[in-house]
Amino acid sequence: MAQFISDRRDIDFLLHELLDAASLAKKSEDFAEFNKKTIDLIVSEARNLAIKEILPTQQEGDQEGCTLKDGVVSTPKSFKRLYDLFNEGEWLAMTEDPEWGGQGMPRTIASAAMEYFNGANYPFMMYPGLTHGAGKLVEEFGTDEQKKIFLKNMYSGKWAGTMLLTEPGAGSDVGALTTSAKRNDDGTYSITGEKIFISGGEHNLTENIIHPVLARIEGAPEGTKGISLFLVPKYRVNEDGTPGEFNDVICTGIEHKLGIHGNSTCSLALGSNGNCVGTLLGEENKGMKAMFVMMNEARLLVGYQGFACATSAYMYAVNYARERVQGKNLLEMMNPEAKSVAIINHPDVRRQLMKMKVLVEGMRSILYYVNYCADLAAIGETQEERAKYQGMVEILTPIAKGYVTDRAFEVCSQGMQVYGGYGFIEEYPMAQLLRDCRITLIYEGTNGIQAMDLLGRKLGMNKGKPVMDLFGEMQKAVAGAKEIEALKEQAEKVELAMNSMAEVAMHMGQTAMSAKVLNAFANAHPFQDAVGDVVVAWMLLWRASVAARKLEKAKKKDKPFYDGVVKSLQFFVDTQLPITMGNLKALKTTSSVAVDMDDASFGG
Amino acid sequence: MAQFISDRRDIDFLLHELLDAASLAKKSEDFAEFNKKTIDLIVSEARNLAIKEILPTQQEGDQEGCTLKDGVVSTPKSFKRLYDLFNEGEWLAMTEDPEWGGQGMPRTIASAAMEYFNGANYPFMMYPGLTHGAGKLVEEFGTDEQKKIFLKNMYSGKWAGTMLLTEPGAGSDVGALTTSAKRNDDGTYSITGEKIFISGGEHNLTENIIHPVLARIEGAPEGTKGISLFLVPKYRVNEDGTPGEFNDVICTGIEHKLGIHGNSTCSLALGSNGNCVGTLLGEENKGMKAMFVMMNEARLLVGYQGFACATSAYMYAVNYARERVQGKNLLEMMNPEAKSVAIINHPDVRRQLMKMKVLVEGMRSILYYVNYCADLAAIGETQEERAKYQGMVEILTPIAKGYVTDRAFEVCSQGMQVYGGYGFIEEYPMAQLLRDCRITLIYEGTNGIQAMDLLGRKLGMNKGKPVMDLFGEMQKAVAGAKEIEALKEQAEKVELAMNSMAEVAMHMGQTAMSAKVLNAFANAHPFQDAVGDVVVAWMLLWRASVAARKLEKAKKKDKPFYDGVVKSLQFFVDTQLPITMGNLKALKTTSSVAVDMDDASFGG
Repeated sequence: MAQFISDRRDIDFLLHELLDAASLAKKSEDFAEFNKKTIDLIVSEARNLAIKEILPTQQEGDQEGCTLKDGVVSTPKSFKRLYDLFNEGEWLAMTEDPEWGGQGMPRTIASAAMEYFNGANYPFMMYPGLTHGAGKLVEEFGTDEQKKIFLKNMYSGKWAGTMLLTEPGAGSDVGALTTSAKRNDDGTYSITGEKIFISGGEHNLTENIIHPVLARIEGAPEGTKGISLFLVPKYRVNEDGTPGEFNDVICTGIEHKLGIHGNSTCSLALGSNGNCVGTLLGEENKGMKAMFVMMNEARLLVGYQGFACATSAYMYAVNYARERVQGKNLLEMMNPEAKSVAIINHPDVRRQLMKMKVLVEGMRSILYYVNYCADLAAIGETQEERAKYQGMVEILTPIAKGYVTDRAFEVCSQGMQVYGGYGFIEEYPMAQLLRDCRITLIYEGTNGIQAMDLLGRKLGMNKGKPVMDLFGEMQKAVAGAKEIEALKEQAEKVELAMNSMAEVAMHMGQTAMSAKVLNAFANAHPFQDAVGDVVVAWMLLWRASVAARKLEKAKKKDKPFYDGVVKSLQFFVDTQLPITMGNLKALKTTSSVAVDMDDASFGG
Repeated sequence: MAQFISDRRDIDFLLHELLDAASLAKKSEDFAEFNKKTIDLIVSEARNLAIKEILPTQQEGDQEGCTLKDGVVSTPKSFKRLYDLFNEGEWLAMTEDPEWGGQGMPRTIASAAMEYFNGANYPFMMYPGLTHGAGKLVEEFGTDEQKKIFLKNMYSGKWAGTMLLTEPGAGSDVGALTTSAKRNDDGTYSITGEKIFISGGEHNLTENIIHPVLARIEGAPEGTKGISLFLVPKYRVNEDGTPGEFNDVICTGIEHKLGIHGNSTCSLALGSNGNCVGTLLGEENKGMKAMFVMMNEARLLVGYQGFACATSAYMYAVNYARERVQGKNLLEMMNPEAKSVAIINHPDVRRQLMKMKVLVEGMRSILYYVNYCADLAAIGETQEERAKYQGMVEILTPIAKGYVTDRAFEVCSQGMQVYGGYGFIEEYPMAQLLRDCRITLIYEGTNGIQAMDLLGRKLGMNKGKPVMDLFGEMQKAVAGAKEIEALKEQAEKVELAMNSMAEVAMHMGQTAMSAKVLNAFANAHPFQDAVGDVVVAWMLLWRASVAARKLEKAKKKDKPFYDGVVKSLQFFVDTQLPITMGNLKALKTTSSVAVDMDDASFGG
């Protein structure tokens, strides 16, 4: 049977053969019920929901889009039923505390569900996804009172959540925001300001929407130091917990976007009638700190969104290439009797599919692994172990967001190419995947900002311990692979790339601390590319080691899969690693041209 | 003043300082009137028309799109007036024979006009562009009678033209087409069949549309050997030359596409009522040969379309980066007094702009140079000279189409990134440029097919003479640059890349002729990337040599431009050439993994 969205075999490989997700049950009582059988059941249920219910809304949601009329935003017609169905299944807060309505699931396992759901219709998934994120803010920083009023309603999906950061003059530079908060006598705050680019900022899916809002309390310092976080509901909450009076949060417009049409991107005016009230979430002037706590998770989610488009694009492309008959086999071009063949037989199509396959496997492995590290950071036995894995999450987050979404967009574009002319037609799936995917390179911190985060913050974090730990994990994988004769050559090449990366990381880190800091940051993005490539190489090597050991004794039906895992490594080492080595060589030069050049020389 | 679409200074540099387009006037009487003054006038007129008249229709054309109702296709409202205005200016057949209504202009000069027009609204430009191409077929292969009836009306734009190749089962494999032609007693042919993806196949801009149609005469051989070319008008032509009876060419649908909404992409049913008549264009069963004659020009046009999106994206991004204020200067992050600056000051934005600049300059140079070669192929003094430049056109065409549009899409995506969140909003220019650009990687032969053309046909053409000539031109540029002290180091690095490319070309060519032919073709696309990179390096080196010699004595206002040309070379050598060298190294391995792997291993 043709697989849609994702390759279940590879998901099972990651969960059971590479990461051994079931072992988490033994490591922590909290995870005790998540044995292999339960895991498989969860993945199957998520897959069913994704394919049977969510996927059919994808194209419809794109074509119908959202509309704003008299301040009311309508989402695509199929979304309301789907939203309710999704919440009946209790999928919104899979990994959260059961006390507040979560399922207490390890993130490693939730990875598979997220992959399926987002691949099926990620613009829809942004509604529960943002609600989850907003709920998490309440859980982490809320008072008992705030939790009592809001949290269960959010984790159950009864009320939706958002995140209000961006303003017209404050995008990448959040510190420039001007939304203000004035303290009232009763301890609440009156909020006034305008926010833009608010995903799911207004819609008709829920009876209330809870907005975490970044604003500056009157008299607070300028910049990020003076920013506080507030909880602002669309409707104020009555004493009995029901939604009451309208809280003066008005949707003034929705954006006409390249993609994610099913998600409403709103401009919101807060307090334009002087009647918007919020409560402080966390401490005064510590709003940015709260944001930073949430950032890794939010960025990882964006990585999943991009990746989900890519795995979908790959599955569609493989299925299409098997069905679309066009042209003779290259070896039979001169044979007039030869019949046309499916395009999967053409070497250039195979190269394209192979490139997609390798990147999809690499991306999937990175994302699941980061979530696996997050689990270990939560349940590790010692403080040291927990700190180590938290560090791994930190250093890998820019890769899981920045590098992954850059590659995801390439995969979507490659998939369109496999479809030829049909790829450009909106009735086929590729156009939407390409359009939807594109925003993942921009929001939640552009990929350039991810690269600056990697170079400027993560590399030197804790005196470089995370980067050393990362390197240590890579070395383990190399040592393991070297023991397998068939992988020895590849392992040595990956090791060379790893060592070169380590050297370049040292050099880039030093440059960033020197007078040549601008040169370093002008090369931050190619540096992120190089690190990401090496991380993929590591993942592919690790995967191939597991697969190679099983290949000989594998059942017939498993052989093509395991062989494909080994071949992915070979393909990456053959075709990409030399390019990565070239990039690493270029980074040693740390070109200063972009920085040195006169502004006027850009022309224009 | 901010430049729109294109950088006039760089166009002037190419036309006058690099290629010396005015010298063509001395080489051929046909071009005698095109002196420097005339050239400048033409470019200025084209620029004015593009910016004042065409550009304002771009977004409107995209949003309005085309509609089909009762068999009638309506184009965006602003297009009819614009189409007439364009033809009043006699821009449609700039380079064609004045005898038939052309302007007899050198292609080198027409390059600048094409860049401006396509950058302003290339979906609109497809109508005159396809009319020009169809007219060219009539000029090359038509009888005197056919020319008399059709040609002047086409070159004047009074009647439009198209090209009917693709069918549902015959895309990349044209030879699979099933449209049939039956000879009538009067020497005409009755045509029956269905064609899809026909750009401008039906519209309301002209009183008649002339369709060159590929079809198979009853009894003709299968495959490409049995294909003939016919001229099929939408309305038959009366004896007095006016459009007469409807010719049974029915538009059955228009496509809903990712981009180029302003151009109608039609499905056409020919002879579904048994009443479609055409005349043979050229010889029986020689339809594909006629196509091949036209192919270089058509592919070059697609290169211009992609490039036009890229240069537009670059101009917009530079202007935006100068105006958008966001974040402090990196060196002043810790200074609480520091003000926010325009984002052109941020190193990562500068890197992005620099990457766009270098690629845009490289692409522009390639395209103008190929047209310059086409001029020399037409007017060269000796048969040898003409053959040499025709060979240069042949070998550079896959680069000018395949490599250029691959990079053009990257530039558009980079431009979107510079705009941040606004890049994703359709009110801003980046979304449309990205969408429009994407089809250029697919149509007129996918970029994979371009790569196969380069490896399989062009490399070995005439016993490798074109590739040796190309190499010879590159060596000249290197020798010239080595004489300039400031460029010596870069020249040596470009030379290394060139030599490596020559070695790899030899190896790839041999592999393609060996039993490992599939491996060679599985690496054709990365090979095209490598050749394209080296061609860009050559162009940038040549440009820098000219600029460096002028830099010292340049007027103050010219210095930033010349310095920018030199810096482009430095940036490419610093950041891209090491990656290209890595790719060339990978190509020596000529990975067989994609070919070897079991189909089942692709999963799905």
